[in-house]
Parts: sequence; C-alpha cells; structure tokens
Amino acid sequence: MNSFGKRFILTTFGESHGKAIGCVLDGVPAGLVIDEAFIQNELDRRRPGKNEFATSRKEADRVEILSGVFEGKSTGTPIAMVIFNTDQKSRDYTEIKDLFRPGHADFTYWHKYGIRDYRGGGRSSARETAARVAAGAVAKLILEELGIEVKSGIGAIDGIEAKRMDFDFAKKSPIYALDPDIEPAQKEAVLRAKQEHDSVGGVALVRIQNAPAGLGEPLYYKMDAVLADAMMGINGVKAVEIGAGMEAAALKGSENNDQISPEGFLTNRSGGILGGITNGDTIEIMVHFKPTPSIFKPQRTVTTQNEETLCTLKGRHDPCIAIRGSIVAEAMAALVIVDMLLLGLGRKMDDLKKVY
Amino acid sequence: MNSFGKRFILTTFGESHGKAIGCVLDGVPAGLVIDEAFIQNELDRRRPGKNEFATSRKEADRVEILSGVFEGKSTGTPIAMVIFNTDQKSRDYTEIKDLFRPGHADFTYWHKYGIRDYRGGGRSSARETAARVAAGAVAKLILEELGIEVKSGIGAIDGIEAKRMDFDFAKKSPIYALDPDIEPAQKEAVLRAKQEHDSVGGVALVRIQNAPAGLGEPLYYKMDAVLADAMMGINGVKAVEIGAGMEAAALKGSENNDQISPEGFLTNRSGGILGGITNGDTIEIMVHFKPTPSIFKPQRTVTTQNEETLCTLKGRHDPCIAIRGSIVAEAMAALVIVDMLLLGLGRKMDDLKKVY
Amino acid sequence: MNSFGKRFILTTFGESHGKAIGCVLDGVPAGLVIDEAFIQNELDRRRPGKNEFATSRKEADRVEILSGVFEGKSTGTPIAMVIFNTDQKSRDYTEIKDLFRPGHADFTYWHKYGIRDYRGGGRSSARETAARVAAGAVAKLILEELGIEVKSGIGAIDGIEAKRMDFDFAKKSPIYALDPDIEPAQKEAVLRAKQEHDSVGGVALVRIQNAPAGLGEPLYYKMDAVLADAMMGINGVKAVEIGAGMEAAALKGSENNDQISPEGFLTNRSGGILGGITNGDTIEIMVHFKPTPSIFKPQRTVTTQNEETLCTLKGRHDPCIAIRGSIVAEAMAALVIVDMLLLGLGRKMDDLKKVY
Amino acid sequence: MNSFGKRFILTTFGESHGKAIGCVLDGVPAGLVIDEAFIQNELDRRRPGKNEFATSRKEADRVEILSGVFEGKSTGTPIAMVIFNTDQKSRDYTEIKDLFRPGHADFTYWHKYGIRDYRGGGRSSARETAARVAAGAVAKLILEELGIEVKSGIGAIDGIEAKRMDFDFAKKSPIYALDPDIEPAQKEAVLRAKQEHDSVGGVALVRIQNAPAGLGEPLYYKMDAVLADAMMGINGVKAVEIGAGMEAAALKGSENNDQISPEGFLTNRSGGILGGITNGDTIEIMVHFKPTPSIFKPQRTVTTQNEETLCTLKGRHDPCIAIRGSIVAEAMAALVIVDMLLLGLGRKMDDLKKVY
Repeated sequence: MNSFGKRFILTTFGESHGKAIGCVLDGVPAGLVIDEAFIQNELDRRRPGKNEFATSRKEADRVEILSGVFEGKSTGTPIAMVIFNTDQKSRDYTEIKDLFRPGHADFTYWHKYGIRDYRGGGRSSARETAARVAAGAVAKLILEELGIEVKSGIGAIDGIEAKRMDFDFAKKSPIYALDPDIEPAQKEAVLRAKQEHDSVGGVALVRIQNAPAGLGEPLYYKMDAVLADAMMGINGVKAVEIGAGMEAAALKGSENNDQISPEGFLTNRSGGILGGITNGDTIEIMVHFKPTPSIFKPQRTVTTQNEETLCTLKGRHDPCIAIRGSIVAEAMAALVIVDMLLLGLGRKMDDLKKVY
Repeated sequence: MNSFGKRFILTTFGESHGKAIGCVLDGVPAGLVIDEAFIQNELDRRRPGKNEFATSRKEADRVEILSGVFEGKSTGTPIAMVIFNTDQKSRDYTEIKDLFRPGHADFTYWHKYGIRDYRGGGRSSARETAARVAAGAVAKLILEELGIEVKSGIGAIDGIEAKRMDFDFAKKSPIYALDPDIEPAQKEAVLRAKQEHDSVGGVALVRIQNAPAGLGEPLYYKMDAVLADAMMGINGVKAVEIGAGMEAAALKGSENNDQISPEGFLTNRSGGILGGITNGDTIEIMVHFKPTPSIFKPQRTVTTQNEETLCTLKGRHDPCIAIRGSIVAEAMAALVIVDMLLLGLGRKMDDLKKVY
Repeated sequence: MNSFGKRFILTTFGESHGKAIGCVLDGVPAGLVIDEAFIQNELDRRRPGKNEFATSRKEADRVEILSGVFEGKSTGTPIAMVIFNTDQKSRDYTEIKDLFRPGHADFTYWHKYGIRDYRGGGRSSARETAARVAAGAVAKLILEELGIEVKSGIGAIDGIEAKRMDFDFAKKSPIYALDPDIEPAQKEAVLRAKQEHDSVGGVALVRIQNAPAGLGEPLYYKMDAVLADAMMGINGVKAVEIGAGMEAAALKGSENNDQISPEGFLTNRSGGILGGITNGDTIEIMVHFKPTPSIFKPQRTVTTQNEETLCTLKGRHDPCIAIRGSIVAEAMAALVIVDMLLLGLGRKMDDLKKVY
Repeated sequence: MNSFGKRFILTTFGESHGKAIGCVLDGVPAGLVIDEAFIQNELDRRRPGKNEFATSRKEADRVEILSGVFEGKSTGTPIAMVIFNTDQKSRDYTEIKDLFRPGHADFTYWHKYGIRDYRGGGRSSARETAARVAAGAVAKLILEELGIEVKSGIGAIDGIEAKRMDFDFAKKSPIYALDPDIEPAQKEAVLRAKQEHDSVGGVALVRIQNAPAGLGEPLYYKMDAVLADAMMGINGVKAVEIGAGMEAAALKGSENNDQISPEGFLTNRSGGILGGITNGDTIEIMVHFKPTPSIFKPQRTVTTQNEETLCTLKGRHDPCIAIRGSIVAEAMAALVIVDMLLLGLGRKMDDLKKVY
C-alpha cells in the first residue's frame, strides 16, 4: 500500500510533521555508483522555500543514506534514505485539528482510519513526495548509464499554455516553465493567485527519451497504465494523458495512426507506446494538477462531529502545486522506466542465456 | 503481468485466434450466489456482431465456468471461466503476418518477444477484454449485495459531445450514448467513418454510486491511481480524467474545492476521491479512446525485416472502439471497487474484532 | 492465494470433481520450444491408476494447451493448460458430505468458508497437483536449455530408509524408490498397509544439479525459504530439510561447515545454499509426507453440526501419498528454480547492459 | 525481496556495520496502542552481549519509531523503526575482506552481486533480525488484543533434547531452555563449544495458542507453507517441522490422524493445521538451526581470486545461534499470524457486510 513498483520497489514512510520521512528502495542493481550530490540536487529542485512561487516553509531536505551503499557503490541490498523534518510549525495546525479542510484528504483519512495526524496533513502531505524524488534520483543514475533521459517542465498554469517545449529552459526557470515567452504570464498568474489568497492549477509535461522498444508488460502492467497510475497517484493530479491524449478521441484513425518508415515512425501521436509497450520513440505524458486546495479564503466545512463551521487556513502553502509537482512527476517516471527495464529482463529465452 | 488486483485478482489468458480466451478470478468471497445468466448478459453487452456500429465478427462469447462454484454459490476458491473461440478467420491475417499495422501492437510485441501470433492481433487483440467483462460481472454481483452501482455510457464520439448524462438511456442505445439528443449525430459519425474506410475516437464515462467513504489505499494504491491504471490499460485508451479532470488545472482553488456541509459535499469536482480515498460521493471517470487503428485505407509501414511497404487491411473491425470499450471500462471499474473493498478490510483494529 | 512465484507465476484452479482443473503459467520467456509430449509424459508420471501402489482412480489426465503457444513455441503470453475431469465418482462422497474426515481439510475449509465442495475433497484434493506437474514440465523445458537438472525419488517409506540414492533407478521404480536393495521392503510396506485398510508415510528427496551460484533473493525470498514454502505447501507434507537438515542441529560448527578449495566445496552439508543463495553445488531437499489421511478403518469424528459420529470411508486412495508426491515435489522445485533464474536477472548493473 | 508478508508487510534494510538497520511495517491497523516499552523489551530479549552464552558484541539496540504513530496510537500509515549501529568494530573484518568464511554467505553474495560489504557479514548478518523482532513486537500487540499468544523456547542444543516444554521457564532461562532439568547440560554444551573455539547447533520450538480456525490461504499461501518460509528464512535454519513433523512420515494413517470429538481434536499431530488452514488447535513448529558458522579454528577456504588460503576468524560470535534465533522465530511466527488474520478478512461475503 505504501510501495510502488514490482522489481524496483519504492517503499515510503513518514508524516509531514513527524520525526522524519524516508524510503527504502529495493532492487537497485549492484555496482551502481551512487552520486549523493546528484541525489541531493534532485531534492533541491523539489525543495520548498526557495522562491516566491512556492511555500515559504523552509526545509533543508538533507537526505541521509542509511544502507545499501558500500564504498560509493550500490551493493544490491535495499537503499534506505531518511530526511529528518526540521521546520515543523505544528501549532499552525491546531486550529484545523477538528475540522476537514475542503479539497484535502482530511475527511477521507478520518473516515478510513478513524484517527488522523492532522499536523500538516500528516501522511497525506505532499511532503512525502520528497522521498519519491530521492528514489527517482537513484533511478536516474541507472538510466544515465543506459543513455535514457527523463525530463519535465510546466506546460500550462491557470490555463495559460506553453506553445514551445524547451526542457532546457524549464530546468532554469523558477516555475519550470517550458516556454520562455509564456513564462512571464504564468509567473504573474501564480503571484496574483497568491496575493488573492487563492491558488491556481497547472499542467506538467514529462518526456522520456531513448527508452528501448519493448518495455512494458501486457496486459496488466502496461507502460502507459503504470505511468498513469504513477502520475495519478501524485497529490493533486486529476488527469493523465499519453501522447496525443484527449485529442486522439476527436481524430479519425487515418489522422491518428503513426505510419512507419524504415527510419522510424513518421509521427508520434502514440506518445511512444503501442499496446502498452514502448516502440522506441519518445514517451510523452501530460499531467494535470488541480489548484492547491489550501487557500486562505473562508470556506464552508464541517467538524469531525459533522457540525457546520468555517475553515480559515493559516500556514504556508504553494500557490501552484503543479510547479514542484512536475519534479515529482519526473521522478515517478524514472522509477517506472527502471522498473520496466528490470521487469523486461527474461522476456526472451535469449536473455537467460546472456546472463547465466 | 497478466493479473490485475491485489485481493480480487483477475488473471486472463488467451489469444484472439487461439483455442480459447478466459480468466481465473481469485479472491471471490464464499457464499456469493453466482448468477450465470447475468454474467452471460454482461458479455452480450460487449459482444461483437450485434449491429452495424460494431465489427461484423460474430462470436457467441458463451462463457463456461470451470471451477469455484458449487451448488450455485461461490466456494471461495478460484473461479475459472473460459470462452472458446469460434468465428476465427485466421486466413484474413496471413497478409499482415510479415508487416506491422500502424497504430497496432504488432511492432512492439515483435520487438519485445521476437515472435508474434499475428492472427487477429493475438494476445493484444481487444478480444481479451471479454474475459475482463466476465470477471467484472462477478464483481458486480458482489457490489449489488452491498448496494453499490457501476454504470457507463458514451460521452463523445468524433468530438461530438453529450450534454446530458442519461445512463439509463445509454443502456438501451446501440452505441451506448448518454445523450438521446446527441445520439443521432454520433451514430452518423460512426457510420460515415465506416463508409469512408476510416474510424473515429470517443469518450466513455463511468460512474460509481454509493461506494462507501474510506476506499483506496494511500499512497501507492490510491483509488484514483488504480482506476487510472485500470482504464489506461484498456486497448486504445490515451487519457483518463477523474472528476473535473483536466478542467481543474485551469481553475482557481476557490473554484475547484468542494466545500462541505453536514449533508455532504456541496459540489463534486473531486469526482468522489480525495487524497486517493473515496469520500462517499459519486465517483466519476472519463476515459478517452483513440480511433480504431484498423482502417481500410493504405498506410505506410515496414515489414519485420524493416523494408518499406504498404499496409492495406482486410478483416472486420469496429469503426469506434470506444463503444464496446465503455462496457470494458465499466467492468474494470467494478473490479477495482471490489478489490478496494476487500483490501480496505482490516484498516481499523475494530475490523478484526468484528470478524474474529 | 492460488498463485505461486514472483516472475514465473503459476495460478491454478479447479476442484477434484468439478469440470476441470488447470493452470495459467505466466512469465514463460518467448521462444521456448514447447514439447507437449514431454509435458504429457510428466503428467503420466504423477497419474493415478497405473499400478497397485496408487489409487485405482483412473484419470487420463490429458492436458490441453489453450494459449501462449504459437507454431510450437512460447510467445511470452500466459500458457493456460486444462485437464478435464473424467472419472468422477461423486456418489462415493455423498456419505461424507455432512462430516469431517480426520486428517483432511474438510474441517478447516468449512470453518474458513462456511461452504465446502465435499466431492473428493474439492479444491483441497491432491488432484490439483496435476496442474503443478504440468507447469513444472514447462519449467523443466527451460531448465534443460540451461543445463540444469531436477530429479526426485523416494528415500523412506514407513520408516524404511534408502541407503543409496540412485535417481536413475527411481525413475523406473513403480514406487520411485531410490535404493534398489530397499525397494522390495518398501513395496511390501505399502501393500501391507493397503491390505490393512491403512496407509503409510514416506520421504521424498529432490536434487537439483548444475544451478548457477547466485540464485535466491535475500532476505525474504531466499532459495531455501522458497523451497521450504513450495514443499510444505504440497498436500501432506509435514517437514522440510535442506542439505544436512535436522542433523546439522546436532553438529559442531567445525563438523558442519563446508570448507572450500579452489576446486569447490569440500563437502556439501549446506545443500548448495548459503545465506539463502545458491553456491553452485548440488541442491538437496528432503520432504516428509504424512501417511494418507484417507484410511478405511472407522474413525471418530463430528458432523458439520458438531455431533459425534463415525467416519467410515469408501472411495479410492493412495496407500502412500509420498510416492506420487515426489513427482509434485520435483515439479515445484523446477518452478522455484526458474522463478529464481528470472528474478536473478538484473542484480548487477551489467545484466542490464547485456540485454539492452 | 526484502519484504515479507502480503497484508502485514515488513520491509527491512541495513547492514551489520552500516549506519543503521531498520524496518518499515505496512498494514498495521489504525487505533492500536503502540507500547514502545514492550517493543524495546522484545528487542532486549534478542539483544547480544547480555551473558556468556551469547556474543560479547554489545549493542544497545535502541529502537526509534519514525512514523506511523500519533498520540500513542497507530494511524494506519507505515511504522518505520530504526536502530542505529553503535558497537561496530569493523577493523575486526579487514582480514576477511578478501576471503570467504566457510559456512557463511560471503561466497554467495560475492557471486550474486560481484560486490560485498564484508564488515560483519553486511546484509547477511543476523543483526538484521533485530528489525524482525521489532516488527514482531508490533504484531504481538495486535495478537494480544485478540487473545492469541506466541511463545518460543529451546528444545535441543548439541543433540541434548528437552523432555518437557515449559515455555514459562524458557522466558527466564538465559538460554531460553524449555526443560529446567535439561538446561544445565545444554548450558554446559554451549560453554564447552565456546571454550573449544567451536559452536553448537540447536532446535527452537514455537507455539501459537488460541489462533482461530480458518487462517491460511489455500493453495499457495497455506499457513504451514508460509510458516516454513518464515522459519527457513532465518539465518542458519536448515529444517522446519510442523506438528508431528518428520515423525509423521514413519507412522500409519491410523496412528497419525487426529480424530475429532464435539469437544475438539483428540490429538494434535497435525500441529493445528489441516490442508494449510488452522483448525483452532495449538500450532506447533520446530525450527532446526545449524551451529554458528563463525568458529575460531583454522579452516580451508579460498580468496575472492579463488586462491587457496586459511580462514582464521577473530571477532565476537554466538556459540549457538539457536538461542537468540528462537526469539526471531517467535517474531516471525507473530508476523505470519497477523498477516493471515488480515488476509483472512473477506473470505466470506458476510465479512464485507460486517464492516461496510
């Protein structure tokens, strides 16, 4: 329930305002050089408190590796990573301890478990995604050795859409915007929402380049299905598209099919996946995030005793979760690809003969 | 790889033109009255060859239960169901045995396995979904005892969108259309595509009513993530939305949050799911299908030897896979809900005390 | 619950007196030549009714492959195999329908499920093991390509122990006896028990030769642990030993350790497994079967209403389940080794580079 | 690979001489009072360095809970527990870094992964079992609420067998001996082995009382099979027996069957399990441990370059791993029972109706 993957298995733990969050990553092949600086750098990309476009909660998000690495290399045993929580202002949350914040998981955790760590959303806090990013960084180290690249960026914010997809620009943009021309308007939308004590939604794009053909396991662990699972499982995601996505549903077959030449596919409306298996082309995913549910306007809600009340939030929150969410989406994609690479070993009799 | 679910586990087998397709359904609670007529009826809803809007391939799709039922009731042991293939015109496929049909899984199966049962798409054929519908019917029998209902219908075809969602009308419509006023235009679009040797995409809606609050397992088996997995894994699906879906990404938090009153949520933009867990409200899913890749216009492609050639298909195909696909989506949703119900047992200490 | 293995996954279904028993085998690498005659031959080794040492129930046990094989080769998709039940004398069982046979699973199935297919033990019948043997035969086809051999034979019956382990002799012996000198006494013990309406226990040995070093996944899918699981899960097994087994518990470390030379281990008290991982030496397993619980002497028992009664069985039963059980143990061992071979792919970064 | 259980899932991490060992326990029902003192006390039972019968390595084994507990109760989210390593004399191991200790996993880890954390056995060290005991303690807290008890003790050491099974005495005995009359001879055997730079094997008994009938999942997650898996997976275990175990293989059916009266089973040779499912009687398991492989006599071995050499160990080791191993066996049994209790929910339609 708290594990993701079949062969490259991420298990996470921890609550927003508990002692620590962390993960155990099982299935890392032995002999991988573990670049701790790179892992920390990936965490820094997701880290809050860096600029005005994100929550002012300041977490160092220092990752500590507890196991699985010896003399700088993976040993094949589980890699446990821990991030101790430091900037916990739990007092911010006492006011909401007996009510359900609209748009949050407060209501559902309460009904599921009959108990709830209300401090900062507890387990349902997006803070848990730091553990995903740490694990995703290890996945990327593996992918790098195989020449596979995973990138992400922001396509749209508040309905303002990128026209170009410049993933290199996105890396440097404080809002990870893909389109330099559109970035200013998107920035403004975020700041305006913040000023109005409101929040905005957004869309992240994830692109995977150079994945070999043949990844993905039919029929119930298809590449696109697992990517959809991975993306929809990120806090605040409400829709996932692969390749042409929704647009495909309004096209004719003759328009949508990617015809093939000896040099490769002539178009890539499939998003690099056919029948749930990669075709060697670029994999394209669009991830739609709802606006941050934590807003600072009064909202109608009920208490845990189902009595009417108003919710007036304090605390520190991202005005647009899609921005930092894009880094999480990228990490999840990397985890999926490595899982599929490992799972794909042994699909042909030849694989066994190559290794044994 | 060919199994779906954690506690209510569907394993399917079979190829389009092999001896049979079928499934093993494990985890069915003992004591369920197995209504075979109902199961067959669900299969008949998906069955091809019924009208001009579907392929003319005629399969009786008679399901035979081999195990797990004794004196009309489930015994708690696996229920195996088999559908023997009857109307196999494998000769239709000899012409495509050495080439890859655009938009199909031919290319990817070949690259993954180095061998491919080319007859009718083999394992990648949508024919396999009959097994899902049979299993989904058993799931529905369970849900019925708990008062939970799963429905589906067609929202859009070829970009022509329903304005109303009348699930009762959809049940009787030959194209499972949700909107009686829009149905004629949608029918026409299908027939026109067929006439033009082309195909059209479409959108199915799935609605789940009366599911209890608290279903879904954070953080990596969330209700919305598993539904996305289930839907994206259906042949031809390219996008999945939950609740407000993509629209949410263009809204403000103040517009998108569902505020709460003692009588329940004031709106349902969440689609009945918060933090991956059901909130007791109606669950809403939108499933976007690409147009059928099998079209009867010449298309550029390559042979298995990567030589340029033209693909000119014969055979019998649905002009719009979304139509019969909606029945599959409904079945998958039913499987997910039962799996989550079973998985949800034991989340509180009290559950153990109630049963033991 | 009805599936075994992580990468080479056997799912079985069916009841003793239902329509059929069978299995779905998922994870078979593509490109394996499927020798159906060999599979049938393995089933014949387990088949009842062949001689006086086994039950007189006559089942043809004809296996039919429904999927996963195309033009004589595995395609990488699930291989479904079915054996239709033919010689069902269900009337033999009406007398026991309301009581619990001592030593049988009748009592526990009833308490678990509240319903029970009493005909021939239903799902708990050893008949299900035919499906394991069919799957084990496919596993052996894979192992053969890699030069790995799995053998079995009977060590002891009724406490009469083999002194030599001649696995070639065992193949031809009607009781699969390992020691030609001891075979007559063992045969006599079986026939005497039969004559006395009683039954005898026995011990099977399984030997795996030429498995590469490095198989088995620490720490919770160790080779020895999974073999123990596989063996203990066979009907009637009450103890499992690896290598020196129980004897090791009475030895000193200096006696029990296998010292090492450049040519290999000097002894093999470990049974080829250290720390749950194979060391390249022969794997040795001892499997202890209880006597057949079905005996034809009156026994005290209760009805499903917990009323005192006598159980006086009719029907046809093996006087010694260890004999045919040894074939099942061999099959399970083969399944485990293939699963571990597949699971072992990707433990080093190099594996990935060899395949991709 | 580093996880155990299906619904109550233990994932462990950590190496003997790394920063820490620990675990994530997923599936703990919400609302359980987490008695930290009890958990620490269970760890203290396994802790080394307490007396002359165990290694003199002194580890405080202080467990720290990082997540999953709020205001003293489980919240239903994963419970992460960490034990930081303190008394690491890694220099003791530099001499063995290039050779394989006989009877150890050094050889197999090296062949599996091509890299090995040689300090204290790294991941293969029995130190990892502290994490199992911590998790087992949480399992016991659950079992206590349901009135189920798990106990263990030492039956035999160096072939000296207990005649009585006094589990209360075992709790207080420094070698966890079951028989007060035999304890002195067993103690002497341990001390003599220690003095002779050798080690001895032993046998642990585990007894589970008051488990309800109906636990265990046929056919591939049977109670006895999973217990065998759990026990055989403990460092140094070479044989596992359930109930009459090996003895059953030398009995007649008429001797071995447990006949039934309205008051219950007349005998318990089955060890409380029939057909893989509990029958409500006491569950009995015998676990056979080999002698500690770490002895202080010179032994023949090879280097990682396969050159002949002598292994002359230093360091601190238990002269008999069965002693502390019995506590691990007890913990594993507790984990299995809780897993089966959770997994057993939903086997009848009624279960669903009781909870939802």
